Amino acid sequence: MKRAVLLAIGDELLSGSRRDINCSWLASKFADAGWEVRKIEFLPDENAPIVQALDHWAGQTEIVVLSGGLGPTHDDKTRQALADFLSVPLIIDHKAYNKIAERYNPAEQEGIERSRSTQGAIPEGTTAVHNSKGSALGISFHHKQTVFFSFPGVPDEFQKMAEECVIPILQNEFAARRSFFVTGWAESLLKDHLASVFKRRDLHISILPSVNLIELALSGEESIVNEVASDILSLLPHDCLPSGCRSLPEAIYYEATKKNLSVSAAESCTGGMIGAALTGISGVSKVFYGSAVCYSNDAKKDLLAVPSFIIEKYGAVSSECAIVMAERAQKMFKTDIAISVTGIAGPDGATAEKPVGMVWFGLASSEHSCTFRKFFSGDRDRVRKRATAAALEYLWRSLKGEEIVCPYS
Amino acid sequence: MKRAVLLAIGDELLSGSRRDINCSWLASKFADAGWEVRKIEFLPDENAPIVQALDHWAGQTEIVVLSGGLGPTHDDKTRQALADFLSVPLIIDHKAYNKIAERYNPAEQEGIERSRSTQGAIPEGTTAVHNSKGSALGISFHHKQTVFFSFPGVPDEFQKMAEECVIPILQNEFAARRSFFVTGWAESLLKDHLASVFKRRDLHISILPSVNLIELALSGEESIVNEVASDILSLLPHDCLPSGCRSLPEAIYYEATKKNLSVSAAESCTGGMIGAALTGISGVSKVFYGSAVCYSNDAKKDLLAVPSFIIEKYGAVSSECAIVMAERAQKMFKTDIAISVTGIAGPDGATAEKPVGMVWFGLASSEHSCTFRKFFSGDRDRVRKRATAAALEYLWRSLKGEEIVCPYS
Repeated sequence: MKRAVLLAIGDELLSGSRRDINCSWLASKFADAGWEVRKIEFLPDENAPIVQALDHWAGQTEIVVLSGGLGPTHDDKTRQALADFLSVPLIIDHKAYNKIAERYNPAEQEGIERSRSTQGAIPEGTTAVHNSKGSALGISFHHKQTVFFSFPGVPDEFQKMAEECVIPILQNEFAARRSFFVTGWAESLLKDHLASVFKRRDLHISILPSVNLIELALSGEESIVNEVASDILSLLPHDCLPSGCRSLPEAIYYEATKKNLSVSAAESCTGGMIGAALTGISGVSKVFYGSAVCYSNDAKKDLLAVPSFIIEKYGAVSSECAIVMAERAQKMFKTDIAISVTGIAGPDGATAEKPVGMVWFGLASSEHSCTFRKFFSGDRDRVRKRATAAALEYLWRSLKGEEIVCPYS
Repeated sequence: MKRAVLLAIGDELLSGSRRDINCSWLASKFADAGWEVRKIEFLPDENAPIVQALDHWAGQTEIVVLSGGLGPTHDDKTRQALADFLSVPLIIDHKAYNKIAERYNPAEQEGIERSRSTQGAIPEGTTAVHNSKGSALGISFHHKQTVFFSFPGVPDEFQKMAEECVIPILQNEFAARRSFFVTGWAESLLKDHLASVFKRRDLHISILPSVNLIELALSGEESIVNEVASDILSLLPHDCLPSGCRSLPEAIYYEATKKNLSVSAAESCTGGMIGAALTGISGVSKVFYGSAVCYSNDAKKDLLAVPSFIIEKYGAVSSECAIVMAERAQKMFKTDIAISVTGIAGPDGATAEKPVGMVWFGLASSEHSCTFRKFFSGDRDRVRKRATAAALEYLWRSLKGEEIVCPYS
C-alpha cells in the first residue's frame, strides 16, 4: 500500500482557534484511492519544527503534502522552511507569478505586486504550482524519492490545487469500493446484526457514524465486495438509503421525485433544522414546499391554527399537538405528506412527565395521520440534531410506503 | 510558556472518515490558560507509531494528552502501547472498574463484565482516571518529568475527563484576556481599519473569522488589554456584539430581551437556517416566535399570502417579494420586527439579471419596511450560510434601532 503524510502548518490550529479542514478532506481522497495516510501533524508557524518534519519524512513515504504558511506576512514560515530543508535560496518565479497577477483587475494590481516578493517566491530548483483561486504560488518537488507538495491553507485554494496536482497521480489500489448508508440503527446493535459481515478478513470495512446515519464503506476485491454488498442488503432490507444517496435529505428527494409526492414540515424544537436540511439540496422545491416554524406557543396558534385548548390541556409537547401541527401543515402547504416535531430540547422547560430529550413527531397525509415519541440523551444541540434526523427518517420511510410502528398513535 | 502535545489515535482520523474534535477543543483550553500546544499528531491504531511518539515527547514537554484507542476491540491499541512504552504489564484495576460497573443497570452488567478485561486494564504503576460517561477507564502517569493522560476518543467522555483532570492543573499564564466579536466586516478591511491596534507588540491578538463574524482575542497585561479594548470599541462603535455575546443569535436575544421586542422570519433560500440559528438558544421563544419557511413559490402564496402577481411580475427573488414576505410574517406572527430572505442559492435557478449569490432581504415593523440586496460568492452551502448571517446582522442592527443604509428600498 502506498503511503502519504500530511502536515498542516499554523499557530491557529494549535491554539484551537481554527479547525483543520484540508487534511481530513485530503485524507479521505487518499483513502478513496487506496492509499494509507501514515500520519497527520499540525505544526506551529516556526522554521525548526517544519524543517525537522520534512527531514523526518523525506524518503519515508511516497508523498508529503503541506497545508498553510504560504501567506505574505511574517507569520508565514513554510516557504523559507522548504528552502532551508533543501539548502537552496528562495527565488521569485516571475513567469508563474505573472499568470496569477493577470487574473486581478487594475485596482488590485498594486496589492498583487506588493506580494510578488513573498508569495511569488519558491525554493530554487522546485516547481511553482499555479493557484487559480488566490495570490500565493504553490510549490512541488522531489527529494529522496518522496514527492512534496506545499499549498496555501485557505481551503478553497488548497482543495483546488490538490485536485489538480495530487489526486490525479494517486493510482487506485483497490479493485472495488462501495458504501452503504444505514439509518435507524445504533452502532453497537448494527455491529451485532451484521456480525457475519464484520467477521470477514478478506475485505476492509469502515464504520462511519453520524447522526442517525451510519456509513459502511467496503473496499476489496470486486467479487468479494459484491458478495458482501448483497449480504448487507438482505440483512437490512429497509434501512439502507437508495444507491447514490449519501444523506437522508438526498434519500427523501430521490423517493419523493420517484413517486411524484410532495412534503412539508411543522417545526417547534428543531426551529427550522428540517427545512434547512432539505433545502440543502438544489432543486428540492419540486418536492419540498416549506416548513412552518412555530417556536412559541402563540406562533402555533397564529401560523398553524393549533387550537388553544390543545396547548392548554395537553401542552405543546404532546401527541395531540404533534398531530394537529402535522395535519395543518399538510393542508396549508397542500402537500402529500407533512412531518411535525415538538419536544423538550432543554436545558429549560422540562417537567417530571416531560424530561429533556422527549420529542413527539407527527406524520400526516390526506388519508391518515399518526404520532411517535422518542427520548434523546445529550445537550440541547444534540437533542435537536437527533430529533431532526429522526424526523427525516420517518419522512423517508413514509415516502417509501413503509409501515412505521406507531406505538403512541 | 508551558508546553503540551496532543496525540489523537485512530485510523478513522487518517482516512478522513472522522474529523478531530477533541484536540482542537483541548488546544483552545490550553491557549485560554496561556499554554502553548507544541504539536498535534494524528496516529494510526498501531503499536509502533504510538510508542515512538510517546518516546519522542517524554521529557520534551510538560503534558502529553492522548485521545482514542481505549475501546474494547482489537483495533484499540493505545492501552498496550502505553504499557510497552513504560515496559510494564497491563493489570486490571478492579476497584476503579467497579465504580464504572455500578453505573450500569442489571441488563447491561453482562456487557460491562465482558469489557472489564480490556477497558478495565491499565499499565502497572499508572493511575486509573474515572469515566463518568462511558465504559473505558482513562489512564494518567508521570514519566521523565512529563505528565501523560490517555482518555477515550468519544468526545463527551474525552471532554468530561479532560475538564476534570487536565484543565484544573493548567495555571493561567496570561494576566488578562478579552474577546470582541465584530460583524459586518471583511477580515482584510478590518485589519486595515484597526491597523493601529495590530501594530502593537505589547499584547497578543488572534483573529478568528467565521461567517460574518470575526473574533478578536486579546491577551496580555491587564492595563494594556483594557487600553486596547477601549481603542477597539471607539474604532468600531456599532459593530461589536454586546459583551458576553459570542454569536449573532446571542446578540439578538440579548437586544430583544433588553428592549422587550419580538422577532420572526420568512425564509426562502435559507430554508429554515435563520430559525435554526435563533432556536439554538434556550429560552429564545420569549423573543423569537417563528419562521415561515416558504421554499416553493406556491408555499409563498399558501403560507404567506404573497400575491401571485408579485411573483409573476417581479419573480420570487425580488425586492417586491422580500418586502411582502417580511410584512406578512410580521403580521402573522404578531412580532415587532420580521426579517425575510429570498435569493438564488445555486447552482440552478440563475438568470443573467439574477446570478447565483444574489439575495434580497426585507425588514418590516408595524411602522415601516425596507429591503436590501447582497451578492455572495461561493457554492450553495456558502451562499446560504452567508445569507443567514447577513439576515441575523440586519435583525440585530434593527433591534438596536440602528439606521441601516437601504440602497434598494
